Amino acid sequence: MRIVKERALMEDNPLHQILHPTSIAWAGASNNFQKMGTIQLLNLTKGGFKGAVYPIHPSEKTVLGLPAYRSARDLPEVPDLAVLVVPTRVVAPLMEDLGRRGVKRAIVTSGGFREMGPGGRRMEEELAEVAGRHGMRFVGPNCIGVINERCRLNTTFFPLRDEEPGTVGMASQSGTYVTQTQLYLKNRGIRFSKAISVGNEANIDVIDCMEYLAADEDTRAVLLYLEGIRRGRRFVEVARRIVKNKPVVALYVGGTEAGARSGTSHTGALAGDDGIYNGMLTQSGVLRAGSVEELYAWGITLASQPPMRGRRVCLLSHSGGPVTSMADACERAGLVLPVFSDGLQGRLRELLPATAAAANPVDLTFSIDQAVLAKDIPQRVLESNEVDGLIIHGIMGSSFREILARQLKDFIDVPIQFMEDIDHGLLGELVTFPQRYGKPVLCSSFMEREDNCTRYLQDHGIPVFYGPEKAVQAMAALARYGEMCRR
Amino acid sequence: MRIVKERALMEDNPLHQILHPTSIAWAGASNNFQKMGTIQLLNLTKGGFKGAVYPIHPSEKTVLGLPAYRSARDLPEVPDLAVLVVPTRVVAPLMEDLGRRGVKRAIVTSGGFREMGPGGRRMEEELAEVAGRHGMRFVGPNCIGVINERCRLNTTFFPLRDEEPGTVGMASQSGTYVTQTQLYLKNRGIRFSKAISVGNEANIDVIDCMEYLAADEDTRAVLLYLEGIRRGRRFVEVARRIVKNKPVVALYVGGTEAGARSGTSHTGALAGDDGIYNGMLTQSGVLRAGSVEELYAWGITLASQPPMRGRRVCLLSHSGGPVTSMADACERAGLVLPVFSDGLQGRLRELLPATAAAANPVDLTFSIDQAVLAKDIPQRVLESNEVDGLIIHGIMGSSFREILARQLKDFIDVPIQFMEDIDHGLLGELVTFPQRYGKPVLCSSFMEREDNCTRYLQDHGIPVFYGPEKAVQAMAALARYGEMCRR
Repeated sequence: MRIVKERALMEDNPLHQILHPTSIAWAGASNNFQKMGTIQLLNLTKGGFKGAVYPIHPSEKTVLGLPAYRSARDLPEVPDLAVLVVPTRVVAPLMEDLGRRGVKRAIVTSGGFREMGPGGRRMEEELAEVAGRHGMRFVGPNCIGVINERCRLNTTFFPLRDEEPGTVGMASQSGTYVTQTQLYLKNRGIRFSKAISVGNEANIDVIDCMEYLAADEDTRAVLLYLEGIRRGRRFVEVARRIVKNKPVVALYVGGTEAGARSGTSHTGALAGDDGIYNGMLTQSGVLRAGSVEELYAWGITLASQPPMRGRRVCLLSHSGGPVTSMADACERAGLVLPVFSDGLQGRLRELLPATAAAANPVDLTFSIDQAVLAKDIPQRVLESNEVDGLIIHGIMGSSFREILARQLKDFIDVPIQFMEDIDHGLLGELVTFPQRYGKPVLCSSFMEREDNCTRYLQDHGIPVFYGPEKAVQAMAALARYGEMCRR
Repeated sequence: MRIVKERALMEDNPLHQILHPTSIAWAGASNNFQKMGTIQLLNLTKGGFKGAVYPIHPSEKTVLGLPAYRSARDLPEVPDLAVLVVPTRVVAPLMEDLGRRGVKRAIVTSGGFREMGPGGRRMEEELAEVAGRHGMRFVGPNCIGVINERCRLNTTFFPLRDEEPGTVGMASQSGTYVTQTQLYLKNRGIRFSKAISVGNEANIDVIDCMEYLAADEDTRAVLLYLEGIRRGRRFVEVARRIVKNKPVVALYVGGTEAGARSGTSHTGALAGDDGIYNGMLTQSGVLRAGSVEELYAWGITLASQPPMRGRRVCLLSHSGGPVTSMADACERAGLVLPVFSDGLQGRLRELLPATAAAANPVDLTFSIDQAVLAKDIPQRVLESNEVDGLIIHGIMGSSFREILARQLKDFIDVPIQFMEDIDHGLLGELVTFPQRYGKPVLCSSFMEREDNCTRYLQDHGIPVFYGPEKAVQAMAALARYGEMCRR
């Protein structure tokens, strides 16, 4: 019943058609590859989008090899969506034409509106008026576009990665955070389900997006980048309804004088006092990230891991430094490191070398037995009733091994592939633990995505952070989310 | 005079011979590649160390192809340094033999001492007594070893990168932070000058290391990872003497109950109240990092950039989101974003598109002219008297361009190499600005080291951070260091 209702809500939402068009009219691309609009259209067509695409161009016969149409009137059918990447003054007249042709959904990438002061504000009002008159709903203006990985829809200037759709849905008042960050996210194993750059929010705003992403089945956590919210009361209403079923994380940067000033010239956002926003986010059950990095990191964590049922953490590593860094960070973040019972310590000691510490943190010291680190200890810890979550530092494979193999090549052959198969066998069990035990497992490593173990874990739902304290912060987010859900 | 004095201090320091040996006796390697000691010796010999190496082995004739010696007595000369990777109980007797043979310097990797409780503590005291009797100085026990990039000395289990020596010197109470982090550091363009894992500090401690690194010419910033300091008063004395000539950054993780407990079982460190340590670090003029990431990031920043002479920052980007994130972070970090004078705004507007913001932050919006972003605006901003430092977000080259080229290949050839040459020409000027104007320049980018521009900047002394807020935190460290130097 709930699902049916959510689906109905979703299909009602103006974003549904914008994110699932079967045909798109595109104004502002040409055969000049110096132009943003051309690069955007290229990304759409080369990116695997299967629908019809109709370039609108006043003079060219074809655009990027596609037949072009001189105006909205000449389009061979009424497209589900129009994308406008045209000079500011042309936007409203073109929307008028599109409206008359029966187009109901649009994305306006063009800038030069409210963010430019009074003159731009008037043009934005005119644009909104035209759309209203024709019953059109649109994203933008002054936005970068949208991404729906599921149907390979990408209207931004940044190419899509050739991968499966992800689980993190994002609505952003900055286009950068859905485009330029693609490679950064790739290096951390994070993929979008949907992403929407909302721009000036003249028609569809970040709250509409949050509502849509909450109902979207591919999306398991909703991320918001905010410079300001106009409909504060509505934000709280919608967020409150959503958060117990789907976590929402927000980065709000308009709360300082400098942030507010910068935001105004960026998207004309109406920033407000940091304390008031903080209260609003807390009241709504939205987790507030402190940086772009945390926004994404907590997003993938909440999307992939069960919330903590308490605040008790086990730290596990063969590296004393990182566990000590994590222990310190845990206490600062309000997480608890219980000293394990004699019974559990006994069960762990059976697996540990003599020099190891079993009380929690569990420090294997010089042991390099991956099975102990990545499977046996985790299992015994998680099946106990003594912890609510586990952080492992130092699972690693190919990155160190390949360097070692080069050093060893005069003496022995290191069976790289064989060892990777063993890694993946062990990790194949570890990745099932969060669901099996209902407790989150996070990893920290200084071996990034070039390492087969890091890749395997990230690609199978265990976040791997490049820094021990980051894993702790993400675990603390799972604790806060768990507490919020139980309230 | 100062230099002569520093050099004398350096050569007096017991670490000098440990870091510049011409001959090394090695106990604990064999031809078994499962053994830590073997891997360590392999790294030493394969890593480019030019001195003589004498394996000590009770039965093998050769170890890793080198002639082996049955005992310290049998060594063909008195080596400058001995490295011990042998079982705990063998350490003291072997040190006795080495001492009798006249060896004066050692590194004891073996664990099982103080960190294991009373029995281990007694063995550590015995070890110290033996060394004392023979006038030997040693690093460890329970340490990972040392690195001197300049003479390709690496006694750790992690191979050295095949690169020029760096500018960041590290002394660490965790071996992990000088070994496992090598690839992490590589991905951020950070290289060590020297690195020392101090272990249990039974003889040479982190203060000796700090003193040595302060005098070392290759080292431009000193990093400390601390779980506890035993000689608190001495730490303050030494740090105070050092910091005005060379910045010192410390990460202290023993200040919470959990951190202290973890540290005790790690290196037996004597942790203390966070507030007391904080006072001690502040009093000493040591910058306190909040995470491992900050430790390294601030280290490379302080090693490569002049300190800020005030707190005024210019933020420059073509991405509104990151500049707004940075503006917010600046204010939180106590940095100031001055609104530029009409004169300066006018000079910047000559270079900017109409939609751009010139007041500070300077937001180029959709302009993708790299010369404006990476050279022309920076120059005009830095030569003004209106800022004390500059952060640029979004200089990028090959990473985006190569994806784009793949999309474009049916239509045009993107002249990748030609465009990289242009990038490097522009950046070649930018990297001279910090010295020319006496003001720091930091960058932020979501394009990591796979991008030619990120690589070029990092390799020519401009730190590039993968996250806008991180660049701001590093700039704030430069402001605090500047203030400390002026006091």
